[in-house]
Amino acid sequence: MSLNTFGHLFRVTTWGESHGPALGATVDGCPPGVAVDEAMLQHWLDQRKPGQNKYTTQRQEPDRVRILSGLFEGRTTGTPIQLMIENTDQRSKDYGEIAQAFRPGHADITYHQKYGLRDYRGGGRSSARETAARVAAGGVARAALAALVPGLSITGYMVQIGPHRIDRARFDATQIPLNPFWVPDAQAATEWADYLDGLRKSGNSVGAVIEVVASGVPAGLGAPVYGKLDTDLAAAMMSINAVKGVEIGDGMAAAMLTGVDNADEIRIGNDGQPLFLSNHAGGILGGISTGQEIVVRFAVKPTSSILTPRRTITVAGAETDLITKGRHDPCVGIRAVPVGEAMMACVLLDHLLLDRGQTGGIRGQIG
Amino acid sequence: MSLNTFGHLFRVTTWGESHGPALGATVDGCPPGVAVDEAMLQHWLDQRKPGQNKYTTQRQEPDRVRILSGLFEGRTTGTPIQLMIENTDQRSKDYGEIAQAFRPGHADITYHQKYGLRDYRGGGRSSARETAARVAAGGVARAALAALVPGLSITGYMVQIGPHRIDRARFDATQIPLNPFWVPDAQAATEWADYLDGLRKSGNSVGAVIEVVASGVPAGLGAPVYGKLDTDLAAAMMSINAVKGVEIGDGMAAAMLTGVDNADEIRIGNDGQPLFLSNHAGGILGGISTGQEIVVRFAVKPTSSILTPRRTITVAGAETDLITKGRHDPCVGIRAVPVGEAMMACVLLDHLLLDRGQTGGIRGQIG
Amino acid sequence: MSLNTFGHLFRVTTWGESHGPALGATVDGCPPGVAVDEAMLQHWLDQRKPGQNKYTTQRQEPDRVRILSGLFEGRTTGTPIQLMIENTDQRSKDYGEIAQAFRPGHADITYHQKYGLRDYRGGGRSSARETAARVAAGGVARAALAALVPGLSITGYMVQIGPHRIDRARFDATQIPLNPFWVPDAQAATEWADYLDGLRKSGNSVGAVIEVVASGVPAGLGAPVYGKLDTDLAAAMMSINAVKGVEIGDGMAAAMLTGVDNADEIRIGNDGQPLFLSNHAGGILGGISTGQEIVVRFAVKPTSSILTPRRTITVAGAETDLITKGRHDPCVGIRAVPVGEAMMACVLLDHLLLDRGQTGGIRGQIG
Amino acid sequence: MSLNTFGHLFRVTTWGESHGPALGATVDGCPPGVAVDEAMLQHWLDQRKPGQNKYTTQRQEPDRVRILSGLFEGRTTGTPIQLMIENTDQRSKDYGEIAQAFRPGHADITYHQKYGLRDYRGGGRSSARETAARVAAGGVARAALAALVPGLSITGYMVQIGPHRIDRARFDATQIPLNPFWVPDAQAATEWADYLDGLRKSGNSVGAVIEVVASGVPAGLGAPVYGKLDTDLAAAMMSINAVKGVEIGDGMAAAMLTGVDNADEIRIGNDGQPLFLSNHAGGILGGISTGQEIVVRFAVKPTSSILTPRRTITVAGAETDLITKGRHDPCVGIRAVPVGEAMMACVLLDHLLLDRGQTGGIRGQIG
Repeated sequence: MSLNTFGHLFRVTTWGESHGPALGATVDGCPPGVAVDEAMLQHWLDQRKPGQNKYTTQRQEPDRVRILSGLFEGRTTGTPIQLMIENTDQRSKDYGEIAQAFRPGHADITYHQKYGLRDYRGGGRSSARETAARVAAGGVARAALAALVPGLSITGYMVQIGPHRIDRARFDATQIPLNPFWVPDAQAATEWADYLDGLRKSGNSVGAVIEVVASGVPAGLGAPVYGKLDTDLAAAMMSINAVKGVEIGDGMAAAMLTGVDNADEIRIGNDGQPLFLSNHAGGILGGISTGQEIVVRFAVKPTSSILTPRRTITVAGAETDLITKGRHDPCVGIRAVPVGEAMMACVLLDHLLLDRGQTGGIRGQIG
Repeated sequence: MSLNTFGHLFRVTTWGESHGPALGATVDGCPPGVAVDEAMLQHWLDQRKPGQNKYTTQRQEPDRVRILSGLFEGRTTGTPIQLMIENTDQRSKDYGEIAQAFRPGHADITYHQKYGLRDYRGGGRSSARETAARVAAGGVARAALAALVPGLSITGYMVQIGPHRIDRARFDATQIPLNPFWVPDAQAATEWADYLDGLRKSGNSVGAVIEVVASGVPAGLGAPVYGKLDTDLAAAMMSINAVKGVEIGDGMAAAMLTGVDNADEIRIGNDGQPLFLSNHAGGILGGISTGQEIVVRFAVKPTSSILTPRRTITVAGAETDLITKGRHDPCVGIRAVPVGEAMMACVLLDHLLLDRGQTGGIRGQIG
Repeated sequence: MSLNTFGHLFRVTTWGESHGPALGATVDGCPPGVAVDEAMLQHWLDQRKPGQNKYTTQRQEPDRVRILSGLFEGRTTGTPIQLMIENTDQRSKDYGEIAQAFRPGHADITYHQKYGLRDYRGGGRSSARETAARVAAGGVARAALAALVPGLSITGYMVQIGPHRIDRARFDATQIPLNPFWVPDAQAATEWADYLDGLRKSGNSVGAVIEVVASGVPAGLGAPVYGKLDTDLAAAMMSINAVKGVEIGDGMAAAMLTGVDNADEIRIGNDGQPLFLSNHAGGILGGISTGQEIVVRFAVKPTSSILTPRRTITVAGAETDLITKGRHDPCVGIRAVPVGEAMMACVLLDHLLLDRGQTGGIRGQIG
Repeated sequence: MSLNTFGHLFRVTTWGESHGPALGATVDGCPPGVAVDEAMLQHWLDQRKPGQNKYTTQRQEPDRVRILSGLFEGRTTGTPIQLMIENTDQRSKDYGEIAQAFRPGHADITYHQKYGLRDYRGGGRSSARETAARVAAGGVARAALAALVPGLSITGYMVQIGPHRIDRARFDATQIPLNPFWVPDAQAATEWADYLDGLRKSGNSVGAVIEVVASGVPAGLGAPVYGKLDTDLAAAMMSINAVKGVEIGDGMAAAMLTGVDNADEIRIGNDGQPLFLSNHAGGILGGISTGQEIVVRFAVKPTSSILTPRRTITVAGAETDLITKGRHDPCVGIRAVPVGEAMMACVLLDHLLLDRGQTGGIRGQIG
């Protein structure tokens, strides 16, 4: 993980600003021979595309991805894959106020402090548009995972918006793609729509919690101490714009458990392999996958660009009040769902390659 | 961050097992000319030393650190600093049961699955003893920070144990070193002692939440996208044994905020510099420090080695019940406080060096 | 240095194949505030452009570089700079023979062995076109160096082609840009032209040695042991296509020196600073720059695509003879001159940033 | 490769100074289950031990290696292996002159310039003693290679000392361990002994060229562009103290070849696999191993610590003449032979792990 790169062997570097000519991802270290094409990546990009419903920014971007390198006759060659998404809806407008004042709760001020200049057009590099590049790269990772670990699947969904949490008793995965919130609960979807409509009309925004689950992950991915699978998952999710907290398994609530409750007891399953009776650990013990579902959650803070005036200062050092006009998501967490899935895919592929690098992918026998 | 190394320019690699001859940290990239000696590091190590009270393991280890390289006439030379702690209390005993069975909730099983063998003596590499090396390395980082950023301070403390949270209204930093829990609240210390005594006697253990705050951190540390200061803090804290969740600022609760509440409004302070009116962001916006306090929390799950029998399996594939005898912490979170501080110190120094590498440490002007 | 990335803080990842839609470089970690524009980069690209004279490939490519990100109002923002060069002269042709047979002395066979497939069109990723991306990235590094170290200059030139070496007594730097060989010796330029004409007409090719000198480099760049300045220079030059040897200072001839001769004796110069009386070391001692000229040389093997038939095998395992038709450089070393300069620029900038990261750029005093 | 670390997956960090308490290597990423013990590593260390004959320093060090971590019941566990060598012959002496003056041709001055201080006792970190740690780490790499690639062997030897080169026609590998120069030519051994005796008595020293050959290396190790096998070999060898040039295959002489001569022609061997008719490439094409012998050479400059007075300056800025007394190798190249072998072993293992990480170690079929 360096400035704009993550991953050890499967490495993704994203580049580009919201209102520059293009943005994208340079993907290095992909296994060779994996079938990948633009349509396959576009499928995932379309899921986070803006303007799909009234709960996401009304910016109209096709977010069309082009593959500029690294493929030959439809297969990865093992060399870098360049994924480019051209910016097409850079609405010409007056950036005057945002150019001069720092949105409170936004990276405007820290970019200025660190770099001495900032690309204020649409948030520049700090725009949520950067996550489109992650989703495209995640599409490559998913294709490689599909080839290497056939049964693996990754599913993300919202579990909380503002004060509203899903009712786990009503969990229904088939609902996830059927509502604008990727929420696995039809009733919650209806209630959340009302809630968010009200917030949006009042010129406000709200935070959310997203859960991403990977099933079919082999035991043995990760490594102790710093190369932990959960260390990299935490870093990957925390690197997404606006994320302020990351949990594995029971997460922060693990503090409330006793050792008796926390122990995920083990039996021998019908297949002769370890069968865990619970999953407080979220599928990771000592930094290494157990073979259970990997469960990660992350909290996304509310969009800082809102129509309600907030007190702030200008580059010139004057105090002012600022309203952020423009096409902003009332809950940026919604579009973070496919982004979280993409990060999960990238981390799992990277650790799969790391593991077979060090151990050859051979597992210690039980029984 | 690779298998056993973290940091970009200030890099720490820890090594060693609980019951091997020694463990330690190889620290590379330290600025030259920093005054460091063994006593300075020992000060921090003594804080996490086992056997100090009845709430931590009764293992008697002096945890004496030796500096084997990288110093000349009491100052760092810019070359690797080797910190070694010899293991002296490796009680000879029969490891039979632990050698054959996997403690549920512990890394025993995943080490076996990944590597095909494991050092079961005292948990081997997965022992909490590994964190002694982090604390020693953190001592070096603190010394360098003291030289480079005189006003910077780092304070860790417990804010929750099991269901018991501190009352922020009673927050009193002077209490932190006066009780065995590093809790900033004398009343909580008394109540927690009773609670933990009960748990310990019942052969159980419990989780905790630790908060670490750094004040005096300059604005401008960190970088957008993957080299975020919060990305590295999340990774650093998640890499500590038994940690299951990490929060920056409001953390998971950011999901409950609206944009109006979340905006840390800005005024011009008496010094002509930005003055933030709140700190929901925990001192980091867009991955870059704002100059406010950096606030990080992490949850530690309960110790998995408990005296209450739990169902598990053996290496041979048999089902069994397991009681873990031995000298285990009823709340491993207590000793995680100095570890969290050490990780904070390492990450901040690393980002300070990264920042002056890329930008020269020059800050954009306001006003 | 990972698969397609080099550099520690100033990191360059090149991507793209000879006959794909485009190739380029993703440049991360550049200091902010540096004036860069496309014309500035194009200046350097034009130096390695094919088709400029009869000694380089007749492929007609404008090699026009576009900057897709990382700039704002003509200055670097500190975020990734994406440099893209579209491939325009992908002559449609039958690749049949090259697709089936491996050119001896070429990467054809090793790509096939490693990846199981290869992009045979124009050599794919192994084409010398990849070096265009390096030259573009080097242009960014030069701009940053110009801002940070005003007096620094980098000059590359050929010192040998086949058996013909330059006469150091006739060294005239003003000749370098005046002949197609970048040779600092007008007489050699004439002789080499005759020599290369003969070779080219006979369907043959030849190797070369390039020397790159950097002057005005501050003392103190580099680090002992593995982060040596010469380690990174050796890696950078060896990574260029077809390079088989790298020398610093006296290089391989250092083996012939005695200690008496090798000692670059030191006096105090008129400026009160160390004055070295010779430079056998090539400006680097113990991996760290002395302040003298940095002198690097590298040998480029002859182009393996030649019109003379050579024995080889096919993918199907049949023995065959192969002639490589097409537009190939008779001495690929010629166009390696600007590439070597670019690599020097990237390594020096990277080490400048590394040094000010670790030490703050403060130098130990003498006198 | 960072300051004191090399390798991607198999990572070695060396630490320690000549006259500190100890030096060593922290080895991370080793495959699990490899049989390793101290005697196995000591075997290689004994080869570079000082004081074995009159051509190496008379310092008497047992160079006894201890393994402090990473093993369990004689096998690697996949966690860091700490190798420590205590310094025992730190002759108490007056360092006055060396403490104040910079040896010309030595890192003394650059350490002072960069770090502002230096450990002048025995050269501190820049001492050739650092290479003992490399040899120990190389022993671990050899053990892992032996387990993973049974037929692989690595052989280093001297091919040149001062003006004297071996006669390839007399090459006899059985001679290598029989003479103090590791030279594969009994007659050369005799002649070189006379030559070096004369030099030593005259208070002088001399350079050398070492060749290291690895046979039985599978095809497919390495990667194009920056992750080339030859890039990492060049870096590894250049990082050894006093090395000034590195060659792969024909090396610098590749400049003299024509394309016709350089083409290593290919036939189908009796085993149905590619059979190369020559090896100008040194076993690497396009950065990837061909399955032929890997051939690397490097030049070591003469020891800079000599008994002949040389002009230099002091820390205080005064001009002076300096004689370096003490126990110095007249040709430090001799002891570089086992060091070059160790670096070859580390690089090959690292690339073996990298390759099976990315590709699974599956090779493209021919025929």
